[in-house]
Amino acid sequence: MTFEELSVGDEATFTKTVTEADVTLYAGITGDMNPLHVDREAAERSRFGGRIAHGMLTAGFVSTVLGTRLPGPGCIYLSQTLRFTRPVRIGDTVTARAEVTALDPDDRRVRLTTTCVNQDGDEVLEGEAELLVP
Amino acid sequence: MTFEELSVGDEATFTKTVTEADVTLYAGITGDMNPLHVDREAAERSRFGGRIAHGMLTAGFVSTVLGTRLPGPGCIYLSQTLRFTRPVRIGDTVTARAEVTALDPDDRRVRLTTTCVNQDGDEVLEGEAELLVP
Amino acid sequence: MTFEELSVGDEATFTKTVTEADVTLYAGITGDMNPLHVDREAAERSRFGGRIAHGMLTAGFVSTVLGTRLPGPGCIYLSQTLRFTRPVRIGDTVTARAEVTALDPDDRRVRLTTTCVNQDGDEVLEGEAELLVP
Amino acid sequence: MTFEELSVGDEATFTKTVTEADVTLYAGITGDMNPLHVDREAAERSRFGGRIAHGMLTAGFVSTVLGTRLPGPGCIYLSQTLRFTRPVRIGDTVTARAEVTALDPDDRRVRLTTTCVNQDGDEVLEGEAELLVP
Repeated sequence: MTFEELSVGDEATFTKTVTEADVTLYAGITGDMNPLHVDREAAERSRFGGRIAHGMLTAGFVSTVLGTRLPGPGCIYLSQTLRFTRPVRIGDTVTARAEVTALDPDDRRVRLTTTCVNQDGDEVLEGEAELLVP
Repeated sequence: MTFEELSVGDEATFTKTVTEADVTLYAGITGDMNPLHVDREAAERSRFGGRIAHGMLTAGFVSTVLGTRLPGPGCIYLSQTLRFTRPVRIGDTVTARAEVTALDPDDRRVRLTTTCVNQDGDEVLEGEAELLVP
Repeated sequence: MTFEELSVGDEATFTKTVTEADVTLYAGITGDMNPLHVDREAAERSRFGGRIAHGMLTAGFVSTVLGTRLPGPGCIYLSQTLRFTRPVRIGDTVTARAEVTALDPDDRRVRLTTTCVNQDGDEVLEGEAELLVP
Repeated sequence: MTFEELSVGDEATFTKTVTEADVTLYAGITGDMNPLHVDREAAERSRFGGRIAHGMLTAGFVSTVLGTRLPGPGCIYLSQTLRFTRPVRIGDTVTARAEVTALDPDDRRVRLTTTCVNQDGDEVLEGEAELLVP
Protein backbone atom coordinates (compact mmCIF):
# COMPACT_ATOMS: atom_id res chain seq x y z
CA MET A 1 0.00 0.00 0.00
CA THR A 2 1.09 3.56 -0.63
CA PHE A 3 1.11 6.09 2.19
CA GLU A 4 -1.99 7.75 0.73
CA GLU A 5 -3.97 4.48 0.89
CA LEU A 6 -3.40 4.11 4.65
CA SER A 7 -5.91 5.27 7.26
CA VAL A 8 -5.88 5.25 11.04
CA GLY A 9 -7.75 2.14 12.13
CA ASP A 10 -6.62 -0.07 9.23
CA GLU A 11 -5.91 -3.59 10.46
CA ALA A 12 -4.29 -6.78 9.21
CA THR A 13 -3.43 -10.15 10.73
CA PHE A 14 -1.24 -13.19 10.10
CA THR A 15 -1.75 -16.54 11.81
CA LYS A 16 0.66 -19.47 12.11
CA THR A 17 1.03 -22.47 14.36
CA VAL A 18 4.44 -22.58 16.07
CA THR A 19 5.74 -26.09 15.57
CA GLU A 20 8.63 -28.07 16.97
CA ALA A 21 10.40 -27.73 13.61
CA ASP A 22 10.01 -23.94 13.75
CA VAL A 23 11.65 -23.76 17.16
CA THR A 24 14.46 -26.14 16.19
CA LEU A 25 15.24 -24.29 12.97
CA TYR A 26 14.95 -20.89 14.63
CA ALA A 27 17.44 -21.94 17.31
CA GLY A 28 19.87 -22.95 14.60
CA ILE A 29 19.48 -19.73 12.62
CA THR A 30 19.93 -17.43 15.59
CA GLY A 31 22.17 -19.57 17.78
CA ASP A 32 19.79 -19.11 20.71
CA MET A 33 20.23 -22.45 22.45
CA ASN A 34 18.66 -21.31 25.72
CA PRO A 35 17.59 -24.55 27.45
CA LEU A 36 14.02 -23.27 27.66
CA HIS A 37 13.83 -23.74 23.88
CA VAL A 38 16.00 -26.77 23.15
CA ASP A 39 16.33 -28.84 26.35
CA ARG A 40 13.07 -30.53 27.20
CA GLU A 41 14.30 -31.79 30.57
CA ALA A 42 15.44 -28.36 31.75
CA ALA A 43 12.34 -26.70 30.34
CA GLU A 44 10.08 -29.11 32.23
CA ARG A 45 11.83 -28.21 35.48
CA SER A 46 11.47 -24.46 34.75
CA ARG A 47 8.63 -22.15 35.70
CA PHE A 48 7.14 -22.77 32.24
CA GLY A 49 6.81 -26.53 32.72
CA GLY A 50 7.95 -27.31 29.18
CA ARG A 51 9.71 -26.02 26.07
CA ILE A 52 8.59 -22.61 24.87
CA ALA A 53 9.19 -20.75 21.62
CA HIS A 54 11.69 -17.91 21.46
CA GLY A 55 9.94 -14.60 22.14
CA MET A 56 11.72 -13.12 19.14
CA LEU A 57 10.30 -15.86 16.90
CA THR A 58 6.82 -14.64 17.84
CA ALA A 59 8.01 -11.09 17.15
CA GLY A 60 8.81 -12.29 13.63
CA PHE A 61 5.09 -12.72 12.95
CA VAL A 62 4.65 -9.00 13.65
CA SER A 63 7.21 -8.29 10.96
CA THR A 64 5.32 -10.63 8.61
CA VAL A 65 2.11 -8.63 8.98
CA LEU A 66 3.91 -5.33 8.50
CA GLY A 67 6.11 -6.39 5.61
CA THR A 68 3.62 -8.44 3.62
CA ARG A 69 0.17 -7.04 4.45
CA LEU A 70 0.01 -3.64 6.20
CA PRO A 71 1.66 -1.48 4.93
CA GLY A 72 3.20 -4.36 2.91
CA PRO A 73 6.12 -4.61 0.48
CA GLY A 74 8.17 -1.49 -0.07
CA CYS A 75 7.93 -0.04 3.43
CA ILE A 76 11.01 0.47 5.61
CA TYR A 77 10.95 -0.89 9.15
CA LEU A 78 12.29 1.80 11.48
CA SER A 79 11.58 0.65 15.02
CA GLN A 80 9.63 -1.77 17.16
CA THR A 81 8.92 -2.11 20.87
CA LEU A 82 8.14 -5.55 22.28
CA ARG A 83 6.68 -6.66 25.58
CA PHE A 84 6.64 -10.43 26.07
CA THR A 85 3.55 -10.98 28.20
CA ARG A 86 3.00 -14.76 28.11
CA PRO A 87 4.99 -17.75 26.88
CA VAL A 88 4.21 -19.36 23.52
CA ARG A 89 4.34 -23.15 23.72
CA ILE A 90 5.14 -25.54 20.90
CA GLY A 91 1.83 -26.21 19.17
CA ASP A 92 0.31 -22.82 19.98
CA THR A 93 -1.29 -20.94 17.09
CA VAL A 94 -0.30 -17.28 17.14
CA THR A 95 -2.20 -14.46 15.45
CA ALA A 96 -0.21 -11.26 14.94
CA ARG A 97 -2.30 -8.13 14.44
CA ALA A 98 -1.25 -4.65 13.35
CA GLU A 99 -3.44 -1.55 13.51
CA VAL A 100 -2.55 1.88 12.19
CA THR A 101 -2.64 4.45 15.00
CA ALA A 102 -0.93 7.50 13.51
CA LEU A 103 0.14 8.82 10.12
CA ASP A 104 2.69 11.59 9.61
CA PRO A 105 2.46 12.84 6.01
CA ASP A 106 5.48 15.15 6.41
CA ASP A 107 7.98 12.32 6.64
CA ARG A 108 5.63 9.55 5.40
CA ARG A 109 5.82 7.64 8.67
CA VAL A 110 3.15 5.32 10.00
CA ARG A 111 2.76 4.04 13.56
CA LEU A 112 0.94 0.84 14.40
CA THR A 113 0.07 -1.06 17.54
CA THR A 114 1.18 -4.64 17.20
CA THR A 115 -0.12 -7.52 19.28
CA CYS A 116 0.09 -11.28 19.22
CA VAL A 117 -2.48 -13.58 20.80
CA ASN A 118 -2.58 -17.36 21.11
CA GLN A 119 -5.43 -19.69 20.14
CA ASP A 120 -7.23 -18.91 23.41
CA GLY A 121 -7.14 -15.17 22.73
CA ASP A 122 -4.53 -14.57 25.42
CA GLU A 123 -2.04 -11.84 24.57
CA VAL A 124 1.51 -13.14 24.31
CA LEU A 125 3.24 -10.03 22.92
CA GLU A 126 2.41 -6.38 22.50
CA GLY A 127 4.22 -3.33 21.25
CA GLU A 128 4.40 -0.56 18.74
CA ALA A 129 5.96 -0.30 15.28
CA GLU A 130 7.11 2.64 13.20
CA LEU A 131 7.66 2.38 9.44
CA LEU A 132 8.53 4.62 6.55
CA VAL A 133 6.26 4.25 3.52
CA PRO A 134 8.19 5.73 0.57
CA MET B 1 24.22 -15.88 36.18
CA THR B 2 22.28 -15.06 39.32
CA PHE B 3 21.11 -11.51 39.95
CA GLU B 4 23.81 -11.08 42.62
CA GLU B 5 26.57 -11.90 40.14
CA LEU B 6 25.55 -9.08 37.76
CA SER B 7 27.16 -5.63 37.76
CA VAL B 8 26.51 -2.49 35.77
CA GLY B 9 28.98 -2.47 32.87
CA ASP B 10 29.05 -6.25 32.36
CA GLU B 11 29.19 -7.09 28.67
CA ALA B 12 28.76 -10.08 26.37
CA THR B 13 28.64 -10.65 22.63
CA PHE B 14 27.49 -13.21 20.09
CA THR B 15 28.62 -13.24 16.46
CA LYS B 16 27.14 -15.07 13.48
CA THR B 17 27.31 -14.76 9.71
CA VAL B 18 23.89 -14.38 8.13
CA THR B 19 23.77 -16.84 5.26
CA GLU B 20 21.41 -17.32 2.37
CA ALA B 21 20.11 -20.47 4.05
CA ASP B 22 19.37 -18.49 7.24
CA VAL B 23 17.24 -15.99 5.35
CA THR B 24 15.45 -18.72 3.39
CA LEU B 25 14.66 -20.73 6.52
CA TYR B 26 13.68 -17.64 8.52
CA ALA B 27 11.21 -16.61 5.81
CA GLY B 28 9.64 -20.02 6.08
CA ILE B 29 9.42 -20.07 9.87
CA THR B 30 7.81 -16.66 10.10
CA GLY B 31 5.97 -16.58 6.79
CA ASP B 32 7.61 -13.26 5.95
CA MET B 33 7.94 -13.47 2.14
CA ASN B 34 8.52 -9.71 1.69
CA PRO B 35 10.20 -9.41 -1.75
CA LEU B 36 13.17 -7.63 -0.13
CA HIS B 37 14.06 -10.97 1.44
CA VAL B 38 13.05 -13.59 -1.14
CA ASP B 39 12.93 -11.92 -4.59
CA ARG B 40 16.38 -10.95 -5.83
CA GLU B 41 15.07 -9.02 -8.82
CA ALA B 42 12.73 -6.83 -6.77
CA ALA B 43 15.37 -6.37 -4.07
CA GLU B 44 17.91 -5.20 -6.64
CA ARG B 45 15.47 -2.57 -7.87
CA SER B 46 14.81 -1.40 -4.28
CA ARG B 47 16.71 1.26 -2.33
CA PHE B 48 18.81 -1.55 -0.82
CA GLY B 49 20.16 -2.76 -4.16
CA GLY B 50 19.85 -6.44 -3.23
CA ARG B 51 18.30 -8.98 -0.88
CA ILE B 52 18.56 -8.12 2.82
CA ALA B 53 17.97 -10.16 5.95
CA HIS B 54 14.80 -9.68 7.98
CA GLY B 55 15.42 -7.07 10.69
CA MET B 56 13.80 -9.36 13.22
CA LEU B 57 16.28 -12.11 12.33
CA THR B 58 19.07 -9.77 13.44
CA ALA B 59 17.05 -9.01 16.57
CA GLY B 60 17.20 -12.72 17.28
CA PHE B 61 20.94 -12.43 17.90
CA VAL B 62 20.19 -9.98 20.72
CA SER B 63 17.99 -12.60 22.31
CA THR B 64 20.82 -15.11 21.88
CA VAL B 65 23.23 -12.96 23.90
CA LEU B 66 20.68 -12.33 26.62
CA GLY B 67 19.35 -15.86 26.88
CA THR B 68 22.60 -17.78 26.63
CA ARG B 69 25.35 -15.45 27.95
CA LEU B 70 24.27 -12.35 29.89
CA PRO B 71 22.30 -12.85 32.08
CA GLY B 72 21.97 -16.34 30.49
CA PRO B 73 19.67 -19.32 31.06
CA GLY B 74 16.96 -18.94 33.66
CA CYS B 75 16.20 -15.26 33.08
CA ILE B 76 12.80 -14.08 31.86
CA TYR B 77 12.69 -11.74 28.84
CA LEU B 78 10.29 -8.92 29.67
CA SER B 79 10.73 -6.31 26.95
CA GLN B 80 12.90 -5.09 24.11
CA THR B 81 13.09 -1.96 22.00
CA LEU B 82 14.57 -2.18 18.52
CA ARG B 83 15.73 0.48 16.09
CA PHE B 84 16.77 -0.88 12.69
CA THR B 85 19.50 1.52 11.62
CA ARG B 86 21.12 -0.18 8.60
CA PRO B 87 20.28 -3.18 6.42
CA VAL B 88 21.99 -6.53 6.97
CA ARG B 89 22.94 -8.19 3.70
CA ILE B 90 23.31 -11.89 3.03
CA GLY B 91 26.90 -12.75 3.93
CA ASP B 92 27.24 -10.04 6.58
CA THR B 93 28.65 -11.09 9.94
CA VAL B 94 26.68 -9.58 12.79
CA THR B 95 27.93 -9.12 16.32
CA ALA B 96 25.23 -8.59 18.95
CA ARG B 97 26.39 -6.94 22.17
CA ALA B 98 24.60 -6.49 25.48
CA GLU B 99 25.77 -4.31 28.36
CA VAL B 100 24.16 -4.05 31.78
CA THR B 101 23.05 -0.46 32.47
CA ALA B 102 20.81 -0.79 35.52
CA LEU B 103 19.99 -3.31 38.24
CA ASP B 104 16.89 -3.16 40.42
CA PRO B 105 17.34 -5.55 43.37
CA ASP B 106 13.77 -5.00 44.62
CA ASP B 107 12.16 -6.82 41.71
CA ARG B 108 15.36 -8.50 40.44
CA ARG B 109 15.20 -6.71 37.10
CA VAL B 110 18.17 -5.89 34.88
CA ARG B 111 18.34 -3.40 32.02
CA LEU B 112 20.83 -3.68 29.18
CA THR B 113 21.68 -1.70 26.08
CA THR B 114 21.70 -4.00 23.09
CA THR B 115 23.40 -3.25 19.78
CA CYS B 116 24.29 -5.15 16.64
CA VAL B 117 27.12 -4.20 14.30
CA ASN B 118 28.24 -5.69 11.00
CA GLN B 119 31.75 -6.82 10.04
CA ASP B 120 32.73 -3.21 9.27
CA GLY B 121 31.69 -2.02 12.72
CA ASP B 122 28.61 -0.22 11.39
CA GLU B 123 25.63 -0.35 13.69
CA VAL B 124 22.67 -2.17 12.18
CA LEU B 125 20.37 -2.35 15.22
CA GLU B 126 20.20 -0.76 18.64
CA GLY B 127 17.81 -0.87 21.54
CA GLU B 128 17.26 -1.71 25.17
CA ALA B 129 16.25 -4.90 26.95
CA GLU B 130 14.69 -5.61 30.31
CA LEU B 131 14.84 -9.02 31.96
CA LEU B 132 13.85 -10.63 35.23
CA VAL B 133 16.58 -12.70 36.90
CA PRO B 134 14.83 -15.04 39.36
CA MET C 1 18.35 -46.67 -17.33
CA THR C 2 18.75 -46.18 -21.03
CA PHE C 3 15.73 -46.08 -23.31
CA GLU C 4 16.55 -49.57 -24.59
CA GLU C 5 16.42 -51.02 -21.06
CA LEU C 6 12.84 -49.83 -20.49
CA SER C 7 9.76 -52.00 -21.06
CA VAL C 8 6.06 -51.36 -20.75
CA GLY C 9 5.00 -52.59 -17.32
CA ASP C 10 8.22 -51.68 -15.54
CA GLU C 11 7.49 -50.31 -12.08
CA ALA C 12 9.26 -48.50 -9.29
CA THR C 13 8.23 -46.94 -5.98
CA PHE C 14 9.48 -44.45 -3.41
CA THR C 15 8.09 -44.19 0.11
CA LYS C 16 8.46 -41.40 2.66
CA THR C 17 6.65 -40.27 5.78
CA VAL C 18 5.50 -36.66 5.57
CA THR C 19 6.56 -35.04 8.81
CA GLU C 20 5.71 -31.76 10.43
CA ALA C 21 9.20 -30.52 9.61
CA ASP C 22 8.68 -31.39 5.93
CA VAL C 23 5.52 -29.29 5.75
CA THR C 24 7.12 -26.40 7.63
CA LEU C 25 10.18 -26.37 5.39
CA TYR C 26 8.16 -26.84 2.23
CA ALA C 27 5.99 -23.84 3.10
CA GLY C 28 9.14 -21.79 3.46
CA ILE C 29 10.71 -22.94 0.20
CA THR C 30 7.61 -22.26 -1.86
CA GLY C 31 6.09 -19.40 0.14
CA ASP C 32 2.81 -21.29 0.35
CA MET C 33 1.45 -20.19 3.74
CA ASN C 34 -2.11 -21.34 3.03
CA PRO C 35 -3.72 -21.71 6.49
CA LEU C 36 -4.54 -25.36 5.72
CA HIS C 37 -0.81 -26.05 5.95
CA VAL C 38 0.48 -23.67 8.64
CA ASP C 39 -2.47 -22.67 10.89
CA ARG C 40 -3.68 -25.58 13.01
CA GLU C 41 -6.74 -23.72 14.30
CA ALA C 42 -7.99 -22.76 10.84
CA ALA C 43 -7.19 -26.23 9.49
CA GLU C 44 -9.18 -27.87 12.29
CA ARG C 45 -12.19 -25.75 11.40
CA SER C 46 -11.84 -26.68 7.70
CA ARG C 47 -13.37 -29.65 5.87
CA PHE C 48 -10.10 -31.53 6.46
CA GLY C 49 -10.29 -31.31 10.26
CA GLY C 50 -6.57 -30.59 10.66
CA ARG C 51 -3.38 -29.50 8.94
CA ILE C 52 -2.63 -31.22 5.64
CA ALA C 53 0.48 -31.38 3.49
CA HIS C 54 0.73 -29.31 0.32
CA GLY C 55 -0.53 -31.39 -2.63
CA MET C 56 2.51 -30.34 -4.62
CA LEU C 57 4.78 -31.72 -1.89
CA THR C 58 3.22 -35.13 -2.51
CA ALA C 59 3.72 -34.58 -6.22
CA GLY C 60 7.41 -34.18 -5.43
CA PHE C 61 7.56 -37.88 -4.52
CA VAL C 62 6.44 -38.71 -8.07
CA SER C 63 9.38 -36.73 -9.38
CA THR C 64 11.63 -38.63 -6.98
CA VAL C 65 10.61 -41.99 -8.43
CA LEU C 66 11.02 -40.77 -12.00
CA GLY C 67 14.28 -38.91 -11.51
CA THR C 68 16.08 -41.39 -9.29
CA ARG C 69 14.61 -44.86 -10.08
CA LEU C 70 12.55 -45.18 -13.25
CA PRO C 71 13.82 -44.07 -15.74
CA GLY C 72 16.32 -42.49 -13.29
CA PRO C 73 19.17 -39.98 -13.67
CA GLY C 74 19.72 -38.51 -17.08
CA CYS C 75 16.11 -38.37 -18.20
CA ILE C 76 14.37 -35.08 -18.99
CA TYR C 77 11.02 -34.41 -17.34
CA LEU C 78 8.66 -33.10 -20.01
CA SER C 79 5.20 -33.06 -18.49
CA GLN C 80 3.03 -34.31 -15.65
CA THR C 81 -0.68 -34.36 -14.91
CA LEU C 82 -1.84 -34.42 -11.30
CA ARG C 83 -5.19 -35.14 -9.71
CA PHE C 84 -5.30 -34.60 -5.94
CA THR C 85 -7.79 -37.20 -4.80
CA ARG C 86 -7.38 -37.26 -0.99
CA PRO C 87 -5.58 -35.08 1.56
CA VAL C 88 -2.22 -36.14 2.99
CA ARG C 89 -2.01 -35.50 6.73
CA ILE C 90 1.11 -34.82 8.75
CA GLY C 91 2.43 -38.23 9.76
CA ASP C 92 1.07 -40.05 6.72
CA THR C 93 3.46 -42.33 4.85
CA VAL C 94 3.16 -41.86 1.11
CA THR C 95 4.25 -44.35 -1.52
CA ALA C 96 4.70 -42.95 -5.01
CA ARG C 97 4.57 -45.49 -7.82
CA ALA C 98 5.42 -45.13 -11.50
CA GLU C 99 4.67 -47.66 -14.21
CA VAL C 100 5.75 -47.48 -17.83
CA THR C 101 2.71 -47.46 -20.14
CA ALA C 102 4.15 -46.45 -23.51
CA LEU C 103 7.51 -46.13 -25.23
CA ASP C 104 8.12 -44.10 -28.37
CA PRO C 105 11.51 -45.07 -29.84
CA ASP C 106 11.32 -42.38 -32.53
CA ASP C 107 11.75 -39.50 -30.12
CA ARG C 108 12.91 -41.61 -27.15
CA ARG C 109 9.91 -40.66 -25.03
CA VAL C 110 8.41 -42.73 -22.23
CA ARG C 111 4.98 -42.38 -20.65
CA LEU C 112 4.20 -43.59 -17.14
CA THR C 113 1.16 -43.67 -14.89
CA THR C 114 2.02 -42.16 -11.54
CA THR C 115 0.07 -42.70 -8.36
CA CYS C 116 0.57 -41.97 -4.67
CA VAL C 117 -1.12 -43.92 -1.89
CA ASN C 118 -1.05 -43.45 1.86
CA GLN C 119 -0.24 -46.08 4.51
CA ASP C 120 -3.81 -47.42 4.28
CA GLY C 121 -3.51 -47.96 0.54
CA ASP C 122 -5.85 -45.07 -0.24
CA GLU C 123 -4.94 -43.15 -3.37
CA VAL C 124 -4.04 -39.53 -2.65
CA LEU C 125 -2.74 -38.49 -6.09
CA GLU C 126 -2.80 -39.88 -9.60
CA GLY C 127 -1.63 -38.72 -12.99
CA GLU C 128 0.59 -39.33 -15.94
CA ALA C 129 4.19 -38.40 -16.70
CA GLU C 130 6.13 -38.00 -19.95
CA LEU C 131 9.92 -38.03 -20.05
CA LEU C 132 12.67 -37.94 -22.63
CA VAL C 133 15.37 -40.60 -22.18
CA PRO C 134 18.42 -39.41 -24.13
CA MET D 1 -12.05 -15.00 -2.44
CA THR D 2 -15.50 -16.51 -2.74
CA PHE D 3 -16.67 -18.05 -6.01
CA GLU D 4 -18.91 -15.05 -6.63
CA GLU D 5 -15.97 -12.63 -6.42
CA LEU D 6 -14.07 -14.40 -9.21
CA SER D 7 -14.19 -13.29 -12.86
CA VAL D 8 -12.64 -14.68 -16.01
CA GLY D 9 -9.42 -12.72 -16.60
CA ASP D 10 -8.54 -12.25 -12.92
CA GLU D 11 -4.81 -12.59 -12.40
CA ALA D 12 -2.33 -12.96 -9.56
CA THR D 13 1.40 -13.59 -9.29
CA PHE D 14 4.01 -14.73 -6.79
CA THR D 15 7.75 -14.18 -7.24
CA LYS D 16 10.64 -15.87 -5.47
CA THR D 17 14.32 -16.39 -6.14
CA VAL D 18 15.28 -20.08 -6.15
CA THR D 19 18.35 -20.37 -3.96
CA GLU D 20 20.85 -23.09 -3.25
CA ALA D 21 19.26 -23.56 0.18
CA ASP D 22 15.86 -24.04 -1.43
CA VAL D 23 17.14 -26.79 -3.70
CA THR D 24 19.05 -28.51 -0.89
CA LEU D 25 16.09 -28.45 1.48
CA TYR D 26 13.66 -29.49 -1.24
CA ALA D 27 15.85 -32.49 -2.11
CA GLY D 28 15.75 -33.51 1.55
CA ILE D 29 11.99 -33.13 1.89
CA THR D 30 11.14 -35.10 -1.23
CA GLY D 31 14.09 -37.46 -1.39
CA ASP D 32 14.75 -36.44 -4.99
CA MET D 33 18.52 -36.76 -5.10
CA ASN D 34 18.74 -36.73 -8.90
CA PRO D 35 22.35 -35.72 -9.65
CA LEU D 36 21.10 -32.79 -11.73
CA HIS D 37 19.96 -31.18 -8.46
CA VAL D 38 22.53 -32.25 -5.89
CA ASP D 39 25.74 -33.28 -7.73
CA ARG D 40 27.49 -30.26 -9.18
CA GLU D 41 30.06 -32.31 -11.07
CA ALA D 42 27.48 -34.49 -12.80
CA ALA D 43 25.23 -31.51 -13.46
CA GLU D 44 28.08 -29.62 -15.12
CA ARG D 45 28.68 -32.56 -17.45
CA SER D 46 24.93 -32.75 -18.31
CA ARG D 47 23.10 -30.97 -21.12
CA PHE D 48 22.16 -28.26 -18.57
CA GLY D 49 25.77 -27.36 -17.78
CA GLY D 50 25.11 -26.97 -14.06
CA ARG D 51 22.75 -27.73 -11.18
CA ILE D 52 19.10 -26.99 -11.85
CA ALA D 53 16.11 -26.77 -9.53
CA HIS D 54 13.57 -29.57 -9.37
CA GLY D 55 10.75 -28.90 -11.82
CA MET D 56 8.26 -29.78 -9.12
CA LEU D 57 9.78 -27.12 -6.85
CA THR D 58 8.87 -24.54 -9.49
CA ALA D 59 5.42 -26.10 -9.67
CA GLY D 60 5.13 -25.32 -5.97
CA PHE D 61 5.05 -21.61 -6.76
CA VAL D 62 1.93 -22.23 -8.85
CA SER D 63 0.31 -23.76 -5.78
CA THR D 64 1.38 -20.70 -3.76
CA VAL D 65 -0.42 -18.32 -6.11
CA LEU D 66 -3.53 -20.49 -6.12
CA GLY D 67 -3.64 -21.24 -2.40
CA THR D 68 -2.72 -17.84 -1.03
CA ARG D 69 -3.81 -15.27 -3.65
CA LEU D 70 -6.20 -16.45 -6.38
CA PRO D 71 -8.60 -17.97 -5.42
CA GLY D 72 -6.74 -18.03 -2.06
CA PRO D 73 -7.36 -19.79 1.27
CA GLY D 74 -10.34 -22.08 1.46
CA CYS D 75 -10.24 -23.43 -2.08
CA ILE D 76 -9.67 -27.12 -2.83
CA TYR D 77 -6.99 -28.06 -5.36
CA LEU D 78 -8.44 -30.64 -7.71
CA SER D 79 -5.97 -31.03 -10.57
CA GLN D 80 -2.98 -29.52 -12.33
CA THR D 81 -1.20 -30.13 -15.61
CA LEU D 82 2.47 -29.20 -15.89
CA ARG D 83 4.76 -28.82 -18.86
CA PHE D 84 8.39 -28.17 -17.97
CA THR D 85 9.61 -26.01 -20.83
CA ARG D 86 13.00 -24.68 -19.64
CA PRO D 87 15.33 -25.44 -16.73
CA VAL D 88 15.37 -23.20 -13.64
CA ARG D 89 18.90 -22.59 -12.42
CA ILE D 90 19.97 -21.81 -8.88
CA GLY D 91 19.73 -18.05 -8.54
CA ASP D 92 16.90 -17.65 -11.04
CA THR D 93 13.92 -15.56 -9.94
CA VAL D 94 10.66 -17.24 -10.87
CA THR D 95 7.31 -15.50 -11.23
CA ALA D 96 4.29 -17.79 -11.12
CA ARG D 97 1.13 -16.36 -12.66
CA ALA D 98 -2.43 -17.67 -12.56
CA GLU D 99 -5.31 -16.36 -14.67
CA VAL D 100 -8.93 -17.42 -14.41
CA THR D 101 -10.12 -18.86 -17.73
CA ALA D 102 -13.43 -20.53 -16.85
CA LEU D 103 -15.97 -20.56 -14.03
CA ASP D 104 -18.59 -23.26 -13.55
CA PRO D 105 -21.21 -22.04 -11.05
CA ASP D 106 -23.01 -25.41 -10.96
CA ASP D 107 -20.21 -27.19 -9.15
CA ARG D 108 -18.30 -24.02 -8.06
CA ARG D 109 -15.21 -24.98 -10.04
CA VAL D 110 -12.67 -22.54 -11.45
CA ARG D 111 -10.08 -23.19 -14.16
CA LEU D 112 -6.89 -21.16 -14.47
CA THR D 113 -3.94 -21.10 -16.80
CA THR D 114 -0.76 -21.24 -14.80
CA THR D 115 2.65 -20.21 -16.06
CA CYS D 116 6.07 -19.59 -14.57
CA VAL D 117 8.67 -17.32 -16.15
CA ASN D 118 12.23 -16.55 -15.12
CA GLN D 119 13.83 -13.12 -14.64
CA ASP D 120 14.34 -12.81 -18.39
CA GLY D 121 10.68 -13.43 -19.10
CA ASP D 122 11.35 -16.89 -20.52
CA GLU D 123 8.65 -19.42 -19.76
CA VAL D 124 9.89 -22.31 -17.63
CA LEU D 125 6.58 -24.04 -16.85
CA GLU D 126 3.04 -23.87 -18.13
CA GLY D 127 -0.16 -25.73 -17.41
CA GLU D 128 -3.71 -25.56 -16.22
CA ALA D 129 -5.27 -25.81 -12.77
CA GLU D 130 -8.74 -26.72 -11.58
CA LEU D 131 -10.01 -25.83 -8.11
CA LEU D 132 -13.20 -26.05 -6.11
CA VAL D 133 -14.20 -22.84 -4.35
CA PRO D 134 -16.66 -23.83 -1.61
